[in-house]
Amino acid sequence: MVNRPLTSLKNIRIVLCGTSHPGNIGAAARAMRTMGITDLAMVNPQRYPDPQAVWFAAGAMDVLESARVCKSLSEALAGTGFAIASSARQRDIAVPMVDVREAALQAVAIAQSRPVALVFGNETSGLSNDEVGCCGLLASIPVDPEFSSLNVAAAVQVFCYELRMACGAVLPDDKAQTLATHEEVEAFYAHLEQTITTTGFLNPAHPRKLMYRLRRLFARSRLQVEEVNILRGILSSLLTPKNRDKD
Amino acid sequence: MVNRPLTSLKNIRIVLCGTSHPGNIGAAARAMRTMGITDLAMVNPQRYPDPQAVWFAAGAMDVLESARVCKSLSEALAGTGFAIASSARQRDIAVPMVDVREAALQAVAIAQSRPVALVFGNETSGLSNDEVGCCGLLASIPVDPEFSSLNVAAAVQVFCYELRMACGAVLPDDKAQTLATHEEVEAFYAHLEQTITTTGFLNPAHPRKLMYRLRRLFARSRLQVEEVNILRGILSSLLTPKNRDKD
Repeated sequence: MVNRPLTSLKNIRIVLCGTSHPGNIGAAARAMRTMGITDLAMVNPQRYPDPQAVWFAAGAMDVLESARVCKSLSEALAGTGFAIASSARQRDIAVPMVDVREAALQAVAIAQSRPVALVFGNETSGLSNDEVGCCGLLASIPVDPEFSSLNVAAAVQVFCYELRMACGAVLPDDKAQTLATHEEVEAFYAHLEQTITTTGFLNPAHPRKLMYRLRRLFARSRLQVEEVNILRGILSSLLTPKNRDKD
Repeated sequence: MVNRPLTSLKNIRIVLCGTSHPGNIGAAARAMRTMGITDLAMVNPQRYPDPQAVWFAAGAMDVLESARVCKSLSEALAGTGFAIASSARQRDIAVPMVDVREAALQAVAIAQSRPVALVFGNETSGLSNDEVGCCGLLASIPVDPEFSSLNVAAAVQVFCYELRMACGAVLPDDKAQTLATHEEVEAFYAHLEQTITTTGFLNPAHPRKLMYRLRRLFARSRLQVEEVNILRGILSSLLTPKNRDKD
């Protein structure tokens, strides 16, 4: 009952560049593991291996034991099909920037077919422009501009949480929040497209990006079964005799 | 250009119950501060004050300096109008449970008019059933059931991030993602309600919770200006002569 299988998370790689404190590496491993993400690569960590990494991992040893230490970002990105840079600040660089929620939706969609890397910078200076330039997207976690000092493991936690949410994570046994299946959501989109084509709002000869925009909107809200039923009920009511009788 | 002013965050109080490690208190203070939340209360922390709290706060000293140490949860909740318990596990208790995203939307809505507390338990055992019983809602962060050991400061980070997102945090200068204002979103809801009343889908005599459900759906997706324009364009197209001509 999820939009995208949680197995997409197996195709997510977290890349930590130049991390200073081994405690942050361990805390990042723990953050990943709680969200079901296990592929970790480090680029030139300042102290690793280190007992503090183990201490802060709090049992996420499978992540640390399978982690790779690399000499360059391109080595760490080997085998991935897409890379996303995490950054707290605006960049004067030609990489599109979105918020972490949007980035997670894109990452999970791509990770259905190929590995995706999420790249995090050093504690003090973040990612260099060269490192960001290796990525196809820049993802930002919104922070208070007066205190933007987000810990790197905390940033990994937020990103991994958003990835799990983007996979349609739901509470166990919560019937009220049962997410619609992929098929149910697609049937809604088809119904919507048919309806707005009938009304003339969507011109198939000039579709612009209308259905794409509508899909992004509803994807962000992660539609529940009952909501799909409501929306399709609305669409059905629009073109039924009851409506027309009122004209 | 936000749905709800970030000043709602000033009405959010983080309550840490029985925290063992002062480092987690400091890390929680830092997590709060990055998201613009500054009201911290602790219930019987095992070691506080402590230099480790200061170290992990990484400069979020205003949060620590104004924090209160309380002898009971009810003392920490004094002055709040609503309390939400954070819990990783299901409870056999009569408090409604939602995910952290939904909880953040509710918290920010309530915090527009009165203080709201978010309550986090001890590192080892979480919140007791008595503590949860003091709260009106139980909020869960989805975790991998095989490794559910989420650090308490990481949980605070995710929750505070969701609160900031629920306030409509946007990236600076990103025109493409300009969020619709409260007034624009309300005008859309009015337009939607009027349309589905006209079609007969909404019966004003038996409204059920239809508009409430639709509001929750669209609130989760945080509508952008352009999306409101698309949705209202669709609504307008449904009841225009062009549509009727096709009958």
